[in-house]
Amino acid sequence: MTTPPARLAVAATLDTKGPAVRVVLDELRRRGCPALVVDTGTGAPRAVVPDIAARQVERIGLDALGAEPGTGRGRLAAMGAGLAALVDESRRAGSIGGLMAIGGGTGAGICSAALRRAPVGFPRMLVSTGVTDDVSALVGVGDVHLVQPVVDFHGGGELLEVVLRRAAAAMAAVVSLPYRPAGDRPQVGVTSFGVTEAAVERVVAGLEQRGFGVCVFHARGSGGRAMEAMVDQGALAAVVDLTTTELTDEVAGGARSAGPHRLEAALRAGIPCVLAPGALDVVNFGPPDSVPEALADRPTVRHSPTTTLVRARAADGEAVAEDIAAKVAAAAHPERVRVVVPARGFSALDAPGQPFHDPAADAAFTERLRRVLPGGVPVRVVDAHLADGAFAAALLAEFDAVARLAGLAPPTAGTPPTATTAATATTEGTKGSEAT
Amino acid sequence: MTTPPARLAVAATLDTKGPAVRVVLDELRRRGCPALVVDTGTGAPRAVVPDIAARQVERIGLDALGAEPGTGRGRLAAMGAGLAALVDESRRAGSIGGLMAIGGGTGAGICSAALRRAPVGFPRMLVSTGVTDDVSALVGVGDVHLVQPVVDFHGGGELLEVVLRRAAAAMAAVVSLPYRPAGDRPQVGVTSFGVTEAAVERVVAGLEQRGFGVCVFHARGSGGRAMEAMVDQGALAAVVDLTTTELTDEVAGGARSAGPHRLEAALRAGIPCVLAPGALDVVNFGPPDSVPEALADRPTVRHSPTTTLVRARAADGEAVAEDIAAKVAAAAHPERVRVVVPARGFSALDAPGQPFHDPAADAAFTERLRRVLPGGVPVRVVDAHLADGAFAAALLAEFDAVARLAGLAPPTAGTPPTATTAATATTEGTKGSEAT
Repeated sequence: MTTPPARLAVAATLDTKGPAVRVVLDELRRRGCPALVVDTGTGAPRAVVPDIAARQVERIGLDALGAEPGTGRGRLAAMGAGLAALVDESRRAGSIGGLMAIGGGTGAGICSAALRRAPVGFPRMLVSTGVTDDVSALVGVGDVHLVQPVVDFHGGGELLEVVLRRAAAAMAAVVSLPYRPAGDRPQVGVTSFGVTEAAVERVVAGLEQRGFGVCVFHARGSGGRAMEAMVDQGALAAVVDLTTTELTDEVAGGARSAGPHRLEAALRAGIPCVLAPGALDVVNFGPPDSVPEALADRPTVRHSPTTTLVRARAADGEAVAEDIAAKVAAAAHPERVRVVVPARGFSALDAPGQPFHDPAADAAFTERLRRVLPGGVPVRVVDAHLADGAFAAALLAEFDAVARLAGLAPPTAGTPPTATTAATATTEGTKGSEAT
Repeated sequence: MTTPPARLAVAATLDTKGPAVRVVLDELRRRGCPALVVDTGTGAPRAVVPDIAARQVERIGLDALGAEPGTGRGRLAAMGAGLAALVDESRRAGSIGGLMAIGGGTGAGICSAALRRAPVGFPRMLVSTGVTDDVSALVGVGDVHLVQPVVDFHGGGELLEVVLRRAAAAMAAVVSLPYRPAGDRPQVGVTSFGVTEAAVERVVAGLEQRGFGVCVFHARGSGGRAMEAMVDQGALAAVVDLTTTELTDEVAGGARSAGPHRLEAALRAGIPCVLAPGALDVVNFGPPDSVPEALADRPTVRHSPTTTLVRARAADGEAVAEDIAAKVAAAAHPERVRVVVPARGFSALDAPGQPFHDPAADAAFTERLRRVLPGGVPVRVVDAHLADGAFAAALLAEFDAVARLAGLAPPTAGTPPTATTAATATTEGTKGSEAT
């Protein structure tokens, strides 16, 4: 399953990180991994001669930004844009198989656009003293390997050498693996949450039976953003967005919103899109003391020491319905959009006898949605709970309908594409009782 | 330089992550990396038979906590403590060479203690959907490789398989590298900051000339905490804590404090300790609007879009002096402690003509420290700026004095221990003009 070694792009400000890059190159060489060194520094390179000079990176960046040569911060922005454009182009041309960025705070900032813009699945690593902060601002939602060197680049030393050699060894191994080991079935995005798990399992099993690949995204803010990013990158052929709970957090001030643009990517791309109000009854907060005073009288569940769930109100559901309708109204292909609502409860907590069971609040969402959703987009209400087989069956039936409309069919329905996939356990994992 | 493959401990809740672990084991096997599978789940393992059963992990944890068998959260705590104890013991016994933890939020929480407690330099990886949050709470300040799988474990799929195979390939490569490739010179911790760089460079060069290894820590909160942790782990033989700026952030409400216990580890351990007020004149904040209203009238420098520096007041310096004195009073070996103060400025910004130059504020710190520091601990005031050669020379002279007192001498003064180290560029990096 190994392929000829792909060339790894190594990006750093060589005026300050040249000695670190030299250690990395030495380890890559020992492992037979060819490298392309890109300088993003503002001073003369030290210890290493770059393959792509900083001047060249800056020029590409200025072109990309349509800007004039500048100094200071303008120069850093040009360098960042230049690196991103260069990595993008080299990746498309197949001349690099991965990106390893090395930097302190400033260096990581320069590499940030390149790390964020590369599509999910493209091997990437960031080695930076900035990795102890909230890293999503630096690397987005992508599958980046992150390494915190603990000791500063400044000063070198044995421990830094160990850290750098390990990072280089790890990336040499990563780029030696093929990019898509399991063929190219069309991939369908599915959103999940612990309280929507039963529906997710049925839908995943159904999609795999149909011959689709499935990417499941945990709808905790980062998951929804990751799915949107993968849709934008063209990596998903359709979505069954059955756990839209992040929309509730957005309107009700919860902690797990995916931002105001959640839901837009699939509608903009015009790919088949089946929506459901999974976990719309739940607003997520952190530890109990993070729940706003104003919500103290609502039904509340302590899910874990760091997660407290609060029941959304009818007004929240109505606001989410308005939000969904406005976004659907801008869809490129409204005929490929379907909404399916489980009349007997939106999550495991919203089942009869459970703390969030509130049919009136659920109905407020459904009624408002029916009223405001653009004509031609059907709202199918199923007389079942989200966890019931009938609801999952309805989602899959609607998926089949929009997939047919869009001409989307898996190449080899019913059979996984390669023996490799069948031999691994990931496929089986979808049939069992995994908790989220 | 490669060694026989070390065994990698793979920890996960096998009831939910068994299929993921099976993919990881398959990739490790392909790469000749032996594994020890530890189950931390509460249900029956799936897809993989563990080497260490969850029951056994829990029992070890209950012993470690001195607790009775419980359920729910108590059980998770026992599992976490059990895994940490098990990893600790296996690491000491040499039966494992690294730890790979795989989990969602709950699983990562269980593995957190083991990841945090392993010493810096012990190979560790966390593959978790929780990696998009602030990761320091999960993995502390250690050199952990972090992998965000983007897609959920729930559902499996091709992309998850790619992510897991890459993570396994990376760890197999990492544990194939020797733990300490560059011999075992005693390591000295040095704290740095951009504005104390000149002193750091001279001190690092001086320590290396003496035959010591040097670990430089960027004093931005995480750096100070990392140094303290390494002292606690016995990984540092002495410290030249010349950038104590995190103490200013602690007393003045800045953003880069390392917490109230900064400085304590070295004093508690009784290792040679030379202190200086490097960058004590600086309080760190984030973007300009994060600077409190009350400080708006003070001299301010915009260091970068995300860092704003504010001049500390005389009262802040006095509070830091009190803090240092109280901590030194509790030192295990006060005779191994020295304080060196540069009379002509504490940072690059505090030099004559620079925006933070304020001899009266500096003097307030020095006078207060002289008054409150326990008898017997000398405060040596050097009539020089922090960046001057005379100040670094004084730091090194005091270091020599306390090192002699403690019987600390490098094994092969003047020569790097192996050709390997000499051949790499990290050592050279300390002599040039690296920016922080």
